[in-house]
Amino acid sequence: MINLRSDNEVGAHPRIIEAVSRAFSSGSAFSYGADEWTRRVEDRLRDIFDKPDLVAYPVGVGTAANVLALACCTPPWGSVYCHPVAHIAAEETNALEFYSGARLVRVDGPAGKIDPKQLAEALAQPVYGVVHFSQPSAVSLTQATEHGTVYAPEEIAALATSAHRHGLKMHMDGARFANALSFVGCTPSELTWKAGIDVLSLGATKNGAMAAEVVIFFNAELAQGFEYRRKRGGHLVSKMRLISAQLDAYFADGLWLDNARHANAMARRLVAGLTALKGAQLLYRVDANEIFVVLPAQVHDALQAAGAQYHPWPSDRPGERAFRLVTAFDTEPAAVDKFLAVAKGSLGSK
Amino acid sequence: MINLRSDNEVGAHPRIIEAVSRAFSSGSAFSYGADEWTRRVEDRLRDIFDKPDLVAYPVGVGTAANVLALACCTPPWGSVYCHPVAHIAAEETNALEFYSGARLVRVDGPAGKIDPKQLAEALAQPVYGVVHFSQPSAVSLTQATEHGTVYAPEEIAALATSAHRHGLKMHMDGARFANALSFVGCTPSELTWKAGIDVLSLGATKNGAMAAEVVIFFNAELAQGFEYRRKRGGHLVSKMRLISAQLDAYFADGLWLDNARHANAMARRLVAGLTALKGAQLLYRVDANEIFVVLPAQVHDALQAAGAQYHPWPSDRPGERAFRLVTAFDTEPAAVDKFLAVAKGSLGSK
Amino acid sequence: MINLRSDNEVGAHPRIIEAVSRAFSSGSAFSYGADEWTRRVEDRLRDIFDKPDLVAYPVGVGTAANVLALACCTPPWGSVYCHPVAHIAAEETNALEFYSGARLVRVDGPAGKIDPKQLAEALAQPVYGVVHFSQPSAVSLTQATEHGTVYAPEEIAALATSAHRHGLKMHMDGARFANALSFVGCTPSELTWKAGIDVLSLGATKNGAMAAEVVIFFNAELAQGFEYRRKRGGHLVSKMRLISAQLDAYFADGLWLDNARHANAMARRLVAGLTALKGAQLLYRVDANEIFVVLPAQVHDALQAAGAQYHPWPSDRPGERAFRLVTAFDTEPAAVDKFLAVAKGSLGSK
Amino acid sequence: MINLRSDNEVGAHPRIIEAVSRAFSSGSAFSYGADEWTRRVEDRLRDIFDKPDLVAYPVGVGTAANVLALACCTPPWGSVYCHPVAHIAAEETNALEFYSGARLVRVDGPAGKIDPKQLAEALAQPVYGVVHFSQPSAVSLTQATEHGTVYAPEEIAALATSAHRHGLKMHMDGARFANALSFVGCTPSELTWKAGIDVLSLGATKNGAMAAEVVIFFNAELAQGFEYRRKRGGHLVSKMRLISAQLDAYFADGLWLDNARHANAMARRLVAGLTALKGAQLLYRVDANEIFVVLPAQVHDALQAAGAQYHPWPSDRPGERAFRLVTAFDTEPAAVDKFLAVAKGSLGSK
Repeated sequence: MINLRSDNEVGAHPRIIEAVSRAFSSGSAFSYGADEWTRRVEDRLRDIFDKPDLVAYPVGVGTAANVLALACCTPPWGSVYCHPVAHIAAEETNALEFYSGARLVRVDGPAGKIDPKQLAEALAQPVYGVVHFSQPSAVSLTQATEHGTVYAPEEIAALATSAHRHGLKMHMDGARFANALSFVGCTPSELTWKAGIDVLSLGATKNGAMAAEVVIFFNAELAQGFEYRRKRGGHLVSKMRLISAQLDAYFADGLWLDNARHANAMARRLVAGLTALKGAQLLYRVDANEIFVVLPAQVHDALQAAGAQYHPWPSDRPGERAFRLVTAFDTEPAAVDKFLAVAKGSLGSK
Repeated sequence: MINLRSDNEVGAHPRIIEAVSRAFSSGSAFSYGADEWTRRVEDRLRDIFDKPDLVAYPVGVGTAANVLALACCTPPWGSVYCHPVAHIAAEETNALEFYSGARLVRVDGPAGKIDPKQLAEALAQPVYGVVHFSQPSAVSLTQATEHGTVYAPEEIAALATSAHRHGLKMHMDGARFANALSFVGCTPSELTWKAGIDVLSLGATKNGAMAAEVVIFFNAELAQGFEYRRKRGGHLVSKMRLISAQLDAYFADGLWLDNARHANAMARRLVAGLTALKGAQLLYRVDANEIFVVLPAQVHDALQAAGAQYHPWPSDRPGERAFRLVTAFDTEPAAVDKFLAVAKGSLGSK
Repeated sequence: MINLRSDNEVGAHPRIIEAVSRAFSSGSAFSYGADEWTRRVEDRLRDIFDKPDLVAYPVGVGTAANVLALACCTPPWGSVYCHPVAHIAAEETNALEFYSGARLVRVDGPAGKIDPKQLAEALAQPVYGVVHFSQPSAVSLTQATEHGTVYAPEEIAALATSAHRHGLKMHMDGARFANALSFVGCTPSELTWKAGIDVLSLGATKNGAMAAEVVIFFNAELAQGFEYRRKRGGHLVSKMRLISAQLDAYFADGLWLDNARHANAMARRLVAGLTALKGAQLLYRVDANEIFVVLPAQVHDALQAAGAQYHPWPSDRPGERAFRLVTAFDTEPAAVDKFLAVAKGSLGSK
Repeated sequence: MINLRSDNEVGAHPRIIEAVSRAFSSGSAFSYGADEWTRRVEDRLRDIFDKPDLVAYPVGVGTAANVLALACCTPPWGSVYCHPVAHIAAEETNALEFYSGARLVRVDGPAGKIDPKQLAEALAQPVYGVVHFSQPSAVSLTQATEHGTVYAPEEIAALATSAHRHGLKMHMDGARFANALSFVGCTPSELTWKAGIDVLSLGATKNGAMAAEVVIFFNAELAQGFEYRRKRGGHLVSKMRLISAQLDAYFADGLWLDNARHANAMARRLVAGLTALKGAQLLYRVDANEIFVVLPAQVHDALQAAGAQYHPWPSDRPGERAFRLVTAFDTEPAAVDKFLAVAKGSLGSK
């Protein structure tokens, strides 16, 4: 039955598989990123983001993409502000501290988004230039958030204005950037550098690739030292085409957007069915491809019995059980419908 | 014409390409290494190394494999001993210091191998337990070495005896382990734990894979913390099957040994032809798949004109030009013969 | 007029000055802590804490004492729990991350004290042994707190029980330990290891010394590596007698307790006068030698005009101005009385 | 009898003891270096070094002074070149790696001095801008060296020219700077910035202070971040006057030069006597206050029997025993003479 556990448990898109196969069947290529695929990825991104002077570095793992990017935004005595549920705060052990030396500061806000007022207050503390205090250096926001919501360009701009006023850099963890972009419907530039983002970790892994991320600096100066940091972290892949060929196919002919559009559509299809269920309740608005939902016991039991796979999610209210459902580029409409049928049937059969 | 620049510039073996394609076409799999390929790789290694209690962790990059392994062998106030041309000393920037905090100490020896007498002397310094001094913690040897030579089991044992006497751990950088093993002709266990190796970074990337290494602890206790270190370094791949499927195919049906045997044979074929050339001179014995050779100017010029690709290599003697030639799993005998024919012809035409 | 800015702005006690003078006039002494003063300090502490097997290491700076102690309590993938106003969280830049690699997690609670319920909840998260999460490793509490309050032994024990149940270590930042001890009136052992403290950073600097702290491990095993960490951090003083002679005098004949008793008494004398003032209001209970108080504008203006020195303190309520007053070992009763007279006079003159 | 073990085993000069006593008897002072002593030290150094724009930071420990200075000279992917016997290489565990992330590279040379030809060769490697290699970032030389020799200004300039040509910074470990200066007889500026030194760790501890070093940046721009690094390392002393008052007295009225002149004179007095002994042989030229000497067995035995204290020193030639003798600011001529009399007598009595 359907697997809605995570978009990192699915396979890869056929065009990406084919691209990797072709890349490794094609004989010699310069190593360490001096190959044609890597060059082509950067070219594609300059077009896609309408920014001819951006620089882009492929990396194999999302955690590495995030912390290598952030290490360029902060001195070892700096602090990085993010939402408590951000991946760098909640699920990447101490990778941030390891790579940057910086301190992590959590700024809360509803539905996984940093509250602009709370951020402004946090950044208004009189700590700048005082040697006893961690120096505020960067804000990292997650797009789409870990709660499946999406920042609108103007929401990003509001946070960026606060951050830039105090000299901080803006980082975006875009592990699900394509899903967010597909939801908002603006251009990639509007969702990033035009809204004030300085550096973006753009992930492909969760959206149809095998293992491929790319760190994009919209301002090349900020990238100073990045290549040494990547090497020192053991993240400079010798046969770089493994990563770049994936990215090349990912950004070609709109594959990245098609995949995200499909995943989002499957999430909406699920939401439509779930909200019609008596007793089911969404925890957050569903903008992208993650659904957080309270399910009645008999619904959950029936789905489990039918073999549906998804993770539990902590709920604040006692007696209530919540769950996370994640759709992906390859989620099948028929499987969604069957999932919903089982859910509905469990209630009807009562 | 033939490319002898590096075994990290070639493609991948068809069976590895196929394994990756199949792995990613096969639907869902648990992420972060809880998948079947990863489990199977560990099982294969327990068989291959005749050590049912070893633990094995796939990693995507050789530098990471080395320094994550070594970080388990030394406290941040330790020192790691290696040959000056070891990859960790000569070509991985400061990854060792970054991951371990340890200091690097170089111990020389002929042909890329640590001289056991020099090691014994270095380790005999009265620094143990004295707080002012870096504490000797690990020896890292490279098998095959960066000069294309191979340690015999008894050579390893001699170094290990020195190291263990003082409480140091023995690490082997096995980026070209298969080439070394193929040369020596002993069992994998005889070349590693039976000779005193505690932890091995075994590379597949240079021998037919895309990007796949595996850190093997022959003593599971030493691996304590490894998984946290890997995660913190950003090296825990979510769709781990990308790495593990490569390794699975690599160790299946002796592919790793076949590939290495072929690369070594191509090196010997080159050596046979080169040593017959007037004026050509090997810098080191050729045990594995790397050849370091002084070539007369007209030979080099003719090869360049014919499009052969290989790297220059620093020579100590003035006026002399040396070069590095690296064969790989896919080097074609005919191409080697053509290379030699051009070389020979350049002299004959004189 | 009186200076109530900080107990680190005052001079040193005559007996400590004399001890340092004598130590440096007495000719040769072994360096790096092999001297008689250092040995004597450890002996005194074993007596004072009724723990013959404790180990004690002098350090020159409080920040170093804290983070060196904590680095022994956590792996680089660990997390350290403390109150948001703890010195390690609020005023030591990123020293904790630098020395330990650990992540800092804030647990709130009233009046500068960690709330036991919030700590229990924080530690109940299902993160143990899961590689994606920082591993909870230590709790650090401040005694007396940064808000001038003091943990009772049973309050410490409650936190320690939570911590130890999950395998965490208990650290106490005792920059003002003597003030706390003087307030509680129990034995040093009851306020530390008998209540579950594993390691204590005991400060003398703020209580009459020049610059002297001592890290006390009640369990010597936990101290493993401490001496290397101290050396690597550049904190092993060659003429260690500078620090140890201060500590030797500090712990001799109860000087440390006399000093603290006096400072606390001066704080109580201030409180008695301030609470009689119309419009003055304490922010927290005054247990030790720090007072946080809201003062009417005319009181503050009169005190400033009279030359009294103290720091402003952020107040939550708009329109209200709060201040911090810190007494010390050398605060004179007459100066306190004069301060209070000015304050009172400012209201009377209205 | 005489103690020639180390200049860090002696007491402190009376004027320094008195300065500390006075500083701590004088009531309140701003903390963290905002005090008058700290300001005065910087003023004195600007005069002494004839450089009105230098910046100077007191630090309590020599190791910290060295590595904090060097951390300003190198990125974490850099390398620091020094002589194998330099203190940062031989006796400060891994403090350099800890504070800077940099790799240590040893460049040999006779008598403790970096050989300019070897340095030039080391810096001529084609590694600049190549991501696989540690980037050469700083040269650290020790003045006086660990072998008691002293670099002349033109020797420093030769090294600095090499270093600066490649963009490296020049650091001087001046733990015994005064001894070197006294030997050379030039101005402080000629021995430092005029010869190309960018940053100097100037030590007072070994020359009559208790524990006091000062990091002097001749170019203030290089000091960027120093204060955060010092704080983060736990080296910002709250009652900074402890260090600054020592330095204030040290640089007042030429005390530092008088102390060094005396120590050097005592070394020369020893040398004069020792070289007259049959069988005694100096290992290095004696420029400053350290003597390395081979002593006949009966001389050593007689000195030991008489209670003289000094350290053995490794000798290269079998059967030969060498020793290190260190004089200090308070070494008494009569004690030197008695030492020599015992030595001479031991031979005469044969």
